[in-house]
Amino acid sequence: DAEPIQIVSIGTEDDKYAFDFHEEKLNSIMRKIPPGWKVSVISVVGAFRTGKSFLLTWFLTYLNELKKRGSAELIDDEDQKWFERIESIGNDAFHWKGGADRDTTGIWMWSQPHFVKMKNGESLAIILVDSQGMFDNETTMSLTSAIFGLSTLLSSYQIYNVDKRIQEDNLQQLALFSEYARLAVEGTDDSSSPAQQKTAKTVDRKPFQTMEFLVRDWQHFDDEEDYDRMEEEMKEYMDKVIAEREAKDLQETREQIQACFEKTTCFGLSHPGMPVIKKNFQGEVSKMDETFLNLLDRYCKRVFSVDNLKPKVIHGREVTAVELGSYIKAYAEMFASGASFPEASTMLEATATANNSNAVNLAVNQYKDFMNRISGPSCNNFIKHKELEDDHKHLLTKAMNMFDSMATFGSRQSIEVARQSVLDVIDKEFEVYTSLNEGRNPLAGLE
Amino acid sequence: DAEPIQIVSIGTEDDKYAFDFHEEKLNSIMRKIPPGWKVSVISVVGAFRTGKSFLLTWFLTYLNELKKRGSAELIDDEDQKWFERIESIGNDAFHWKGGADRDTTGIWMWSQPHFVKMKNGESLAIILVDSQGMFDNETTMSLTSAIFGLSTLLSSYQIYNVDKRIQEDNLQQLALFSEYARLAVEGTDDSSSPAQQKTAKTVDRKPFQTMEFLVRDWQHFDDEEDYDRMEEEMKEYMDKVIAEREAKDLQETREQIQACFEKTTCFGLSHPGMPVIKKNFQGEVSKMDETFLNLLDRYCKRVFSVDNLKPKVIHGREVTAVELGSYIKAYAEMFASGASFPEASTMLEATATANNSNAVNLAVNQYKDFMNRISGPSCNNFIKHKELEDDHKHLLTKAMNMFDSMATFGSRQSIEVARQSVLDVIDKEFEVYTSLNEGRNPLAGLE
Ligand SMILES: Nc1nc2c(ncn2[C@@H]2O[C@H](COP(=O)(O)OP(=O)(O)O)[C@@H](O)[C@H]2O)c(=O)[nH]1
Ligand SMILES: Nc1nc2c(ncn2[C@@H]2O[C@H](COP(=O)(O)OP(=O)(O)O)[C@@H](O)[C@H]2O)c(=O)[nH]1
Ligand SMILES: [Mg+2]
Ligand SMILES: [Mg+2]
Repeated sequence: DAEPIQIVSIGTEDDKYAFDFHEEKLNSIMRKIPPGWKVSVISVVGAFRTGKSFLLTWFLTYLNELKKRGSAELIDDEDQKWFERIESIGNDAFHWKGGADRDTTGIWMWSQPHFVKMKNGESLAIILVDSQGMFDNETTMSLTSAIFGLSTLLSSYQIYNVDKRIQEDNLQQLALFSEYARLAVEGTDDSSSPAQQKTAKTVDRKPFQTMEFLVRDWQHFDDEEDYDRMEEEMKEYMDKVIAEREAKDLQETREQIQACFEKTTCFGLSHPGMPVIKKNFQGEVSKMDETFLNLLDRYCKRVFSVDNLKPKVIHGREVTAVELGSYIKAYAEMFASGASFPEASTMLEATATANNSNAVNLAVNQYKDFMNRISGPSCNNFIKHKELEDDHKHLLTKAMNMFDSMATFGSRQSIEVARQSVLDVIDKEFEVYTSLNEGRNPLAGLE
Repeated sequence: DAEPIQIVSIGTEDDKYAFDFHEEKLNSIMRKIPPGWKVSVISVVGAFRTGKSFLLTWFLTYLNELKKRGSAELIDDEDQKWFERIESIGNDAFHWKGGADRDTTGIWMWSQPHFVKMKNGESLAIILVDSQGMFDNETTMSLTSAIFGLSTLLSSYQIYNVDKRIQEDNLQQLALFSEYARLAVEGTDDSSSPAQQKTAKTVDRKPFQTMEFLVRDWQHFDDEEDYDRMEEEMKEYMDKVIAEREAKDLQETREQIQACFEKTTCFGLSHPGMPVIKKNFQGEVSKMDETFLNLLDRYCKRVFSVDNLKPKVIHGREVTAVELGSYIKAYAEMFASGASFPEASTMLEATATANNSNAVNLAVNQYKDFMNRISGPSCNNFIKHKELEDDHKHLLTKAMNMFDSMATFGSRQSIEVARQSVLDVIDKEFEVYTSLNEGRNPLAGLE
């Protein structure tokens, strides 16, 4: 009966890839949590086909064993670890499978919350969330940012699944998407009016809790026997990756991430072994690499330990399931409507847009600077209309040359649009200069 | 005596990561090519630590065996493939090694060209180029685009090494960096004056030749025995990835790539096996996975087959080694000076910049629209200065509110700069409106 439930679905070409939030489905899960209980939401994001659903299936397996045994201390037998009791992990939980194509789309939540007793005696509900892989060759940038952003917003513990290493582009993407999420948080904070809105760097309270980089197929462990040391190595790796940089773009990326998340941590899993990556692999635990299994065991125990689990906090306050439900609804609606979010585009497009708008500004400003000297508001002398027009024509040509020499980057069509806007703006400005000049005409009204 | 030679080096924090081209080193290699001979340049780019140098070391090994045996037909013995004769691939060619940190920096060229006879009887020199891995957590975006861009410019056959799959972000990065390279090509094309400059989509002749995606650790072969079929599968995969899309950003990325490269191809290598990714691996061929070795064999034979090898073409013309040398110099100088290239930034920064400049334009335009109605160039009535000033103040507040509600994305500091520019521009515009109004003052000059 327990199953993954799709709380966000993504349309097709026909409905312009609509971002559809299914409130009733979310509520059906939230209703299973007793009133007043806090919730911990663990969600996994990352590129498509990187083993996210496979990992979540392991999480479920662990949580089920935990439930059976009652506590983490009792989960292993004396002669057998919990995962050795499992013959194979099925493909019926979070669907994982081989194949090069994307599988999961939208955002999925496990229908059945798990419950744990915290140290303070309070109960906590645990919810697992799977999401569509990023960069699957089918999803637009704005949908990608909406999915990643919503996953950030709803989770208290977000796992960013990366392949082999934490690349700078992974960090850059995280910095971008977390900014969308931060914007949505601000949008639901009643205590801040638009005029007081703050950006990540100035807000004192960080909007999100834990961001954990989970590196898959990590191939740089010093000694694959010493598991404590292996965990320590990943911590050192994280510290090194996120440490301060001199170069502006590297440093800004790091500042953004650290301003958005209270904690940035890292864990490494080694390669699961050759049989796991073959077409005919069915989830047999015996075929999985031993080091991988041992690391996975440590990882499950770490993620779900009562020291690590924290209730979801929004605007500085721990929220109940019902509250979380309404926040998620508000966030999802923001993404669905795209309201007041700047459009996410590709790097080529963003760079070209910036370059074009630079070129427009420089060309127009050059024109205005020269025209101001001839007939700007601080000029005193009237000049003949023909003369003004000649100057205008000359300066227009100069402005267009400047524009053409700069606006050479990206799509011809966008350049054309920008070019036309220079012409339009200068046209209007010329009207202004003509009128200014006319105001200084000593014969005005007499003609 | 043969060795990798660094033709581009990258500075440190101290010299602001200078991009340094070493002309004399490049020339020392080009001089080894007889006058008039054409050159084929094979270069490998991709993220750091993805096995680029390891692959190039295999290429060198293959080329050396080819040289010994005289031709590809003679390279294998009856009972032994060429690679089975190799005990281990050394770490002294293109330096490859374990470890999580980046290794290669800048751009490296093999000191010794290899020579092959083409079908038409002409000789062709083959040059191998290795480059710094992208996204290594130390390199700025502008250096990354310069390194990738120069590699694209100098090669006739560029191999884009990717991990496990071709992700959309890989394509987006390629689209961006190839635009920088295209811009540099235009910059050295004497036949096109700035005013005639064209963007990728409109130029008839594609600036670059072959872009080959080499997918490492591909885990989706249907049948790991049938090598012909495996090659076919990767071709189908490529076709699917690059096929037309409805969504604008996906489609533009694809159009850009196809406008830049004459051919876009793909090859897949399977995982080299668990021993290869261990710390103590020394390059022993016997430890490498058999499927991997067989695919590598096919790949070497394919890349260096006389059907596949093409001389480097620039502006539609096959160039000699000397000509190529001077082009590379010109390209490198463009990147070193950064001249006329739009700045490459991170996605967060680019999106924030675009959002801020949008907010500035909307705020200013809103102000101007209203003010135009009151005292624009087509107004006829003079209004009292006090009245105009009140309107201005009111509209300024409205404009700033609009700006504040939009400019909420990205660094506080950039938002502040943009905000100040709205204030400055509106200030100047108010002077213009005041002056326009004054020109309609019936009492002007009489007071
Ligand atoms: N190389 C590697 N493959 C994995 C790992 N975990 C799972 N896989 C395989 O990757 C494939 C995709 O897994 P899936 O969980 O569906 O990926 P998702 O798209 O990220 O949810 C499956 O065939 C798994 O067998 C891992 O840690 N490393
Ligand atoms: N998983 C995997 N590892 C590889 C492959 N080829 C090489 N390696 C390992 O990756 C590491 C880095 O290789 P290197 O060629 O220096 O990477 P580069 O930074 O891209 O030049 C080495 O330790 C190799 O043993 C491959 O195809 N797959
Ligand atoms: Mg999945
Ligand atoms: Mg290397």
